[in-house]
Amino acid sequence: MELDRNWVVGFVDGEGCFHVSLTRHDEMTVGYQVLPEFVVVQHERDRQVLMALKRFFEAGVVRGNHDDRLCLRIRKLDSLQRVCDFFGRHPLKTKKNVDFHKFRRVLYLMSQKRHLCQEGLLEIIDIVLTMNSAQRPRLEEIRRELTQAG
Amino acid sequence: MELDRNWVVGFVDGEGCFHVSLTRHDEMTVGYQVLPEFVVVQHERDRQVLMALKRFFEAGVVRGNHDDRLCLRIRKLDSLQRVCDFFGRHPLKTKKNVDFHKFRRVLYLMSQKRHLCQEGLLEIIDIVLTMNSAQRPRLEEIRRELTQAG
Repeated sequence: MELDRNWVVGFVDGEGCFHVSLTRHDEMTVGYQVLPEFVVVQHERDRQVLMALKRFFEAGVVRGNHDDRLCLRIRKLDSLQRVCDFFGRHPLKTKKNVDFHKFRRVLYLMSQKRHLCQEGLLEIIDIVLTMNSAQRPRLEEIRRELTQAG
Repeated sequence: MELDRNWVVGFVDGEGCFHVSLTRHDEMTVGYQVLPEFVVVQHERDRQVLMALKRFFEAGVVRGNHDDRLCLRIRKLDSLQRVCDFFGRHPLKTKKNVDFHKFRRVLYLMSQKRHLCQEGLLEIIDIVLTMNSAQRPRLEEIRRELTQAG
C-alpha cells in the first residue's frame, strides 16, 4: 500500500496523537524521564494501513494495544524528529496542529538536554499541561514535587 | 481552508462514517423508510474543518451532535451520489472502503426504487446487517416482521 503525503496528513488529523508522558526514574538527577511519542491506533483489521504508515515514516513499532486494537508507536527521538519535519512541511488542518507545535517544542527542548535539569523539566511540564488533560492531576503533582524540592 | 482531495480521503478514512438506518413510516406501502447518510463528527473546536468539508462536497449540514461535538451530515440522495462518485474515484485505504461499497450499493438500489418494495427492502436490510453491528437487533426484528408479513 502506497501512501500519498496529503492522505497521511488527513489520516493523522483524524487518528494521530502527539503525546508526552513523564515516568519516575530514580537514576536520573531530576527524578523523571520525559517520553514523547507519536501514536496511531486502529482496529486490527487495518493492520495494513498501520504497516504502510510505519514504512512511510520509516519508523515505529506496530503492536496490539487493547481489545481488538493495534497501535503504531514511534518513540525514538531521531524518528520523532523526522515525523515533526514532515508535519512542519505538511501542516495538519485540525486543531491537532496546535498540539503538534507544542510536541515539537518539547522535542526541541530535549534536543537541547533541557529535560535533564529541573528548570527545563518544569518548562516541559507546563507545555504538556496545556496538551493533555487526562494527565493533568499527575503532572501537577510532579510539578509541585519539583518546585518544593528546588 | 482549502482541502486537498487526498487529505479528504485520509481524513474520512479516519473520521467518516457511511451509515444506513431504517425508520418506521406507516404511510409507505412497505412500512419503513431507508435513510442513508454520510457523517463526520468532530470536536466543536474543529468547526472550520467540517465547514471546509461541507464546501468540498457542496452538500450537508453542520450541527451540534452531543456534548462538545459537531457533526457534518449529508442525507440528500443526489448529494450522497456525489460523495460516492468522489470515493469511487479516490478509494479509501482502510477497511471502511468495504462499508463504502455496501453503502453505494444501497444508494444504487434506492435509485432503482427497490427500497419501495418488500423484496428490495429485504435486500437492503441484508446489506446493512453486514455493515453496522449496533443496529443488528433492530434490523433483524424488522427483517422478521417483513418476512412474516410477506
